[in-house]
Amino acid sequence: MEVGIVGGTGALGRGLARRWLVAGVDVRLGSRDASRGQAAADELRAELPDAAGQVVGVDNLGACEAPVVVLAVPYEGLDAVLEPLAPAVEGRIVVSAVNPLAFDAHGPYNEPVAEGSVAQACAARLPGARMTAAFHSVSSTALKRLDTPLEDDVPVFGDDTEAVDAVATLANRIDGVRSYPAGALRLAAPLEGLTAVIIAVNKRHKAHVGLRLSRLTPR
Amino acid sequence: MEVGIVGGTGALGRGLARRWLVAGVDVRLGSRDASRGQAAADELRAELPDAAGQVVGVDNLGACEAPVVVLAVPYEGLDAVLEPLAPAVEGRIVVSAVNPLAFDAHGPYNEPVAEGSVAQACAARLPGARMTAAFHSVSSTALKRLDTPLEDDVPVFGDDTEAVDAVATLANRIDGVRSYPAGALRLAAPLEGLTAVIIAVNKRHKAHVGLRLSRLTPR
Repeated sequence: MEVGIVGGTGALGRGLARRWLVAGVDVRLGSRDASRGQAAADELRAELPDAAGQVVGVDNLGACEAPVVVLAVPYEGLDAVLEPLAPAVEGRIVVSAVNPLAFDAHGPYNEPVAEGSVAQACAARLPGARMTAAFHSVSSTALKRLDTPLEDDVPVFGDDTEAVDAVATLANRIDGVRSYPAGALRLAAPLEGLTAVIIAVNKRHKAHVGLRLSRLTPR
Repeated sequence: MEVGIVGGTGALGRGLARRWLVAGVDVRLGSRDASRGQAAADELRAELPDAAGQVVGVDNLGACEAPVVVLAVPYEGLDAVLEPLAPAVEGRIVVSAVNPLAFDAHGPYNEPVAEGSVAQACAARLPGARMTAAFHSVSSTALKRLDTPLEDDVPVFGDDTEAVDAVATLANRIDGVRSYPAGALRLAAPLEGLTAVIIAVNKRHKAHVGLRLSRLTPR
C-alpha cells in the first residue's frame, strides 16, 4: 500500500506520514521543492528507523504517482497548487483534507467556498480525479504522539464508492482511527468547517480534541 | 430552572422536553397553535407521571416567556416563525438548534445560508436576544429512549459568555450530555451542517449516532 501526500512537509502531512510509516504503508512525501520533501523524508527515516513502511521525498507532482493522493495543503493558494497536478491525478484517488480555515482578531473562522465545500472546489479543478475528502478533523499534535493511539473517527466523503472504500481502508491502517464511508462529496463542508470549531475548543479547554461519533458500529 | 421550546411539538423539541422534565427542568412547550402545544404537553404528562419538572403547552410566543428559549423549528419558514417573536425575546437567552437541512434525490444536504450560519441569521432577525446555538447534532431517536443515557456532546456557540454558560448548564441537566462553551456564534455553521452528515451516516450504517469529542475534559 502506498500513499502520496501533497504538502507532506506541513504538520498534518508529516503527522499522517509518521503514522502510516509505522503501520507499514509506503509514503511519497511531496513538497513544492523536492529538496524540502527529501529533507522531511530523511528526518522521518531517522526518527523511525524501525518503521515498516518506506518513505521517499519528492515534489508535489511526484507525490501524485501514488495510487492514493492526499491533499494536505492550506486553503490559501490552493488553486496554484492544484493546477499543475491536474493531468497527473487523472484516474487516481485524491483525498482533500483541506479546511477553509482563516483567523482574525476574533479567532478562527471559515472562509466561504463558492463551490459549497473545498472538496467540491478540488473536484472542479481536478476533473479527472476520483475525488474524496477525509482527515479534516485529525489533530496534528495527536498524530505526533506515536506512543498514544488516536481516538479519532475519519469519515470519508465521496461519490465514487470504490474510492471512498480505499481511503477508509488506508485511514484504518492508523492505530486508533475508525474510518468509514460517510456520504456524498457535497457533505464534506461541515467536516471542513469543524476544524475551526476544534481549534476554538482546544484553546478554551486546553486540549487536542478529535471527532468520535457515538452509538456507531460501522458496517 | 425553566426552558421554553419554540417548535416544541416537533421531534427534537419533544425529545428535549422529555429529557428536561425527567431531570426536573420546567418546560414551556410552544407550537404555532396553543392547542397543539397543550395536546403535546398532555401527552408528555401522561407518559411521564413521575417527572420532577412541570410542562405547560403554549403557543410559540408563550414559549418565549421562559428565561431560555430554544428554537427547535425547521429552517424552511424560519423567518415567518421568528418575526412575531422578536419583541418577546428582547433580553432573553435564545438557542438556535436549527439546521439548514434539505433533501433531494441524492439524499440530505445543506442549504447555503447568506449570513454564514442559521445562528447568525437568527441573531439578525432577533436583534434584542442574547443569541446562542446548540443541540444541532442530538438525535431525536436517542432523546426518546429514556432508559438509555445519551452519549452526546452539546457544544454551545455564542458571543455572550454568560448566556453560553447558562445554555451549557441547562444542557448538562440531561443525563449523558456533556455540554461546554465551544466558540463564537459564527462557528455554529459546521455543527448546523453536521446534521446532514449524521443523517447520511445513520442511513449507511443503520445507527442513530451522536457527536463526541475525544481527548476533551471541559474546563
